[in-house]
Amino acid sequence: MGSEIEIQFAVERLLARYVASLDEDRLEEWPGYFTEECRYQIISAENYEQHLPIGVFFADSRGMLSDRVSALRQANVYEAQRYRHIVSSTLILGEEDGVVRAQSNYLVLRIMHDGATAIFSSGRYLDRVSFRGKGPLFVEKLVVFDSRRVDTLLAIPL
Amino acid sequence: MGSEIEIQFAVERLLARYVASLDEDRLEEWPGYFTEECRYQIISAENYEQHLPIGVFFADSRGMLSDRVSALRQANVYEAQRYRHIVSSTLILGEEDGVVRAQSNYLVLRIMHDGATAIFSSGRYLDRVSFRGKGPLFVEKLVVFDSRRVDTLLAIPL
Amino acid sequence: MGSEIEIQFAVERLLARYVASLDEDRLEEWPGYFTEECRYQIISAENYEQHLPIGVFFADSRGMLSDRVSALRQANVYEAQRYRHIVSSTLILGEEDGVVRAQSNYLVLRIMHDGATAIFSSGRYLDRVSFRGKGPLFVEKLVVFDSRRVDTLLAIPL
Repeated sequence: MGSEIEIQFAVERLLARYVASLDEDRLEEWPGYFTEECRYQIISAENYEQHLPIGVFFADSRGMLSDRVSALRQANVYEAQRYRHIVSSTLILGEEDGVVRAQSNYLVLRIMHDGATAIFSSGRYLDRVSFRGKGPLFVEKLVVFDSRRVDTLLAIPL
Repeated sequence: MGSEIEIQFAVERLLARYVASLDEDRLEEWPGYFTEECRYQIISAENYEQHLPIGVFFADSRGMLSDRVSALRQANVYEAQRYRHIVSSTLILGEEDGVVRAQSNYLVLRIMHDGATAIFSSGRYLDRVSFRGKGPLFVEKLVVFDSRRVDTLLAIPL
Repeated sequence: MGSEIEIQFAVERLLARYVASLDEDRLEEWPGYFTEECRYQIISAENYEQHLPIGVFFADSRGMLSDRVSALRQANVYEAQRYRHIVSSTLILGEEDGVVRAQSNYLVLRIMHDGATAIFSSGRYLDRVSFRGKGPLFVEKLVVFDSRRVDTLLAIPL
């Protein structure tokens, strides 16, 4: 595992690689940031706080994430825009059995084909990162978004 | 105090905990990030540069910060919206007698109840962080905001 | 050079100092972040991906950067607004002969004189940072912006 600073560094590096893959339209790399069995969920802050298990997207295996990428590719949904992730304030919350809990603030900008740029989503990443095996990899990643205005396009990797 | 990297890590961690408390509506934790005697000020870049001591909000003790939280709770001002802080480019500027000077860029988004998201404030944190006692804690935090358009709601913890 | 964490720290610190100079209108410091011979280019993501060498601004020496600052000062272009840089997800990609390749996501806000704040530019910094001599200094800095809407004012240091 390493020292506090080494864990912070490793988690921030994982996050930086993760958002680089998304922003550079290398979606096929996305599932590879997760363990084989995992939990990925996009959920509103409101539902998260009320413990309502109703999210915009849910997957519990790397295979489901791969299926999602295939679907996005077939529909040409992802490439029509650009996305830019800003991640900040990554906080290591604890560690148990080689799995680190971390949270970060995020902001995703969407740049439309005509160049118009808008705030697409803001919120928190609530992550559980495994350092076992050849990690670090996400065992769990909850994307808890702030706005209740749900864009139907939100079911892209965030 | 520790090495340069350890100080950077500690200041960034303090900032990350600070904004997490604000964004998660745990305002009551806010005064606890400051030393008993402290200086907290929200001031426009224009006034700051002209050395005009006219800010939007000023406090010089942890008690004043607690009073502010009570007032915000009674008026239900804070909870009506969500806030999301993005902090970047934290720079350690110097150290004297166990107190570190640091600055960071910040961006605060406000998410209204209907989901509309807007840039609420941008600017710089000018911090003096004490590593004495059970620190790190803010001895001084100046929130120097960029825009001269002062929102009356700006007198919330930033 | 140092360990992975030390390099990460040094590159992030260089970037933090760089954006602080720009945001605080200390443009004259800008060329000093580069080696004497260098490459600085502002280019759209579209042109960058298609290997079209058509950028908004190009310089290949510290002298050219200084000339640019002089021109901006004479035209009073820069000071009419404020800028705020948010940098995140800095990723060290490799190292060769004391030169580190790094990339970061950036967001630049522009605050007009009347206080209106808008997203001015988002994109990626693609940097090559020399640790030789009295470094770290930029040998190369490509500012690859996301939006095809090119603001004529974009030829400011980003």
